[in-house]
Amino acid sequence: MSPRGTLYGLGLGPGDPDLMTVRAHRLLQRATHVAYFRKAGRPGQARRIVDGLLPEGVTEHAMEYPVTTEIPVDDPAYNQRLSAFYAECAAQLRALSDAGHDVVVLCEGDPFFYGSFMHLYTRLVQTHPVQVVPAITGMSGAWTATGQPITWGDDVLTVLMGTLPEARLARHMADSEALVVMKIGRHIDKVRRALTTAGRLQDAWLVEFATMPGQKVMRLAEADGRVTPYFSIVLVHGQGRRP
Amino acid sequence: MSPRGTLYGLGLGPGDPDLMTVRAHRLLQRATHVAYFRKAGRPGQARRIVDGLLPEGVTEHAMEYPVTTEIPVDDPAYNQRLSAFYAECAAQLRALSDAGHDVVVLCEGDPFFYGSFMHLYTRLVQTHPVQVVPAITGMSGAWTATGQPITWGDDVLTVLMGTLPEARLARHMADSEALVVMKIGRHIDKVRRALTTAGRLQDAWLVEFATMPGQKVMRLAEADGRVTPYFSIVLVHGQGRRP
Ligand SMILES: C[S@@+](CC[C@H](N)C(=O)[O-])C[C@H]1O[C@@H](n2cnc3c(N)ncnc32)[C@H](O)[C@@H]1O
Ligand SMILES: C[S@@+](CC[C@H](N)C(=O)[O-])C[C@H]1O[C@@H](n2cnc3c(N)ncnc32)[C@H](O)[C@@H]1O
Repeated sequence: MSPRGTLYGLGLGPGDPDLMTVRAHRLLQRATHVAYFRKAGRPGQARRIVDGLLPEGVTEHAMEYPVTTEIPVDDPAYNQRLSAFYAECAAQLRALSDAGHDVVVLCEGDPFFYGSFMHLYTRLVQTHPVQVVPAITGMSGAWTATGQPITWGDDVLTVLMGTLPEARLARHMADSEALVVMKIGRHIDKVRRALTTAGRLQDAWLVEFATMPGQKVMRLAEADGRVTPYFSIVLVHGQGRRP
Repeated sequence: MSPRGTLYGLGLGPGDPDLMTVRAHRLLQRATHVAYFRKAGRPGQARRIVDGLLPEGVTEHAMEYPVTTEIPVDDPAYNQRLSAFYAECAAQLRALSDAGHDVVVLCEGDPFFYGSFMHLYTRLVQTHPVQVVPAITGMSGAWTATGQPITWGDDVLTVLMGTLPEARLARHMADSEALVVMKIGRHIDKVRRALTTAGRLQDAWLVEFATMPGQKVMRLAEADGRVTPYFSIVLVHGQGRRP
């Protein structure tokens, strides 16, 4: 029996392939099996980042999210459906590892920072060899794109998800010098209202597709009515001590 | 007259040279001038990360922090001394750029995330070509080292500096699912007290030298009386929704 293969949670960084790590680049060039999440019928962003970098003859495993638009996110059926999907993907990876194959699972940004790979990781790590390769987060790509440091001195930085209730968003926005808001999508108006309540709207920036083709940086106050893509981050820079 | 050289704020990541970006690696291999901060008489961590990676004949510019131990941090004289130092370093970089040289300024972690390079950046960006290359932060290295994801679902993540007042630390610690505390040093007892007030001490981890030789991961509650090195981070993992 061959020894089990290693399952890599491979962070690819914010999007520009030049911003992946030397380790990620090397693991990709030697890969025999790569796996990645994607929405049904879409190429998938993680897969796009590695275009042209995979060796000939690599086997690709697309893990397609079940269509869930008909189930509300807070319905327990939604969680059950996702949970079954992750269990299936984990089983597929276990089978590959048991057969002696290393598998590189492609991850957007840093795998352990709000990543989907974490749901496979917890299902695999007790029984199979798993290695996580960290990467630049989307938010680092976003603040670099604004050309301004995100934090100075002892600024507090709070990372918020647009999916949170408005009151909680506003409370953190008022109590933290620097802000990052992710997962914005259809929550953009709520995020804008919370920033207004906290008196921070005028200082907020919107970054779309940070370090990717189509990158856009604009003041949030000037983006009224804009439909933001999935890869969007709102930032407020800290203004702490700067000798 | 030759065109001005570009001044790069080059993020090197958390410490392991294998975790620098492909772009950083390429810029280092072509570098003719590299500059880096260090304490007087110390090799400097950023310089250590690139050991063995710099080309023959590269010119090194060590920028040595003025000794300030005799001045309290909140004395305006402290800020003045630092400010004069940064002005000098910026002048040196401007002169190199004016002479047509590219200069790679080595930065620990991500340059725009609590980095020293920002103090040069603001003094250079109006007049000289500056480019910032993002990198993996020390905190990404630290949470990867714990083998546990830092944030799930819509967890709030707050990044705090150990230099903050105890009451403010405790307030954020109680109001945020996931926590990162940096710049700990002699503030470790205050950080521990604040975590205790917030009821989070039992969930806190201490990571020293993340991804560097000598990396250590332990529960903070089991690190009583420990003198933590400069490269130390305290973490509390979020426990959000996980289908
Ligand atoms: C499921 S989270 C994954 C985060 C990822 N693991 C990371 O380290 O950034 C997805 C969210 O990340 C943000 N994001 C990630 N990369 C981005 C980029 N290059 N530009 C803008 N937003 C990005 C968006 O807010 C998006 O809704
Ligand atoms: C001046 S800040 C610089 C942060 C850096 N620009 C980054 O992106 O992580 C210095 C603090 O970063 C943290 N730090 C950076 N790298 C680290 C590592 N590899 N291990 C532990 N702590 C680290 C420590 O808390 C240290 O006090």
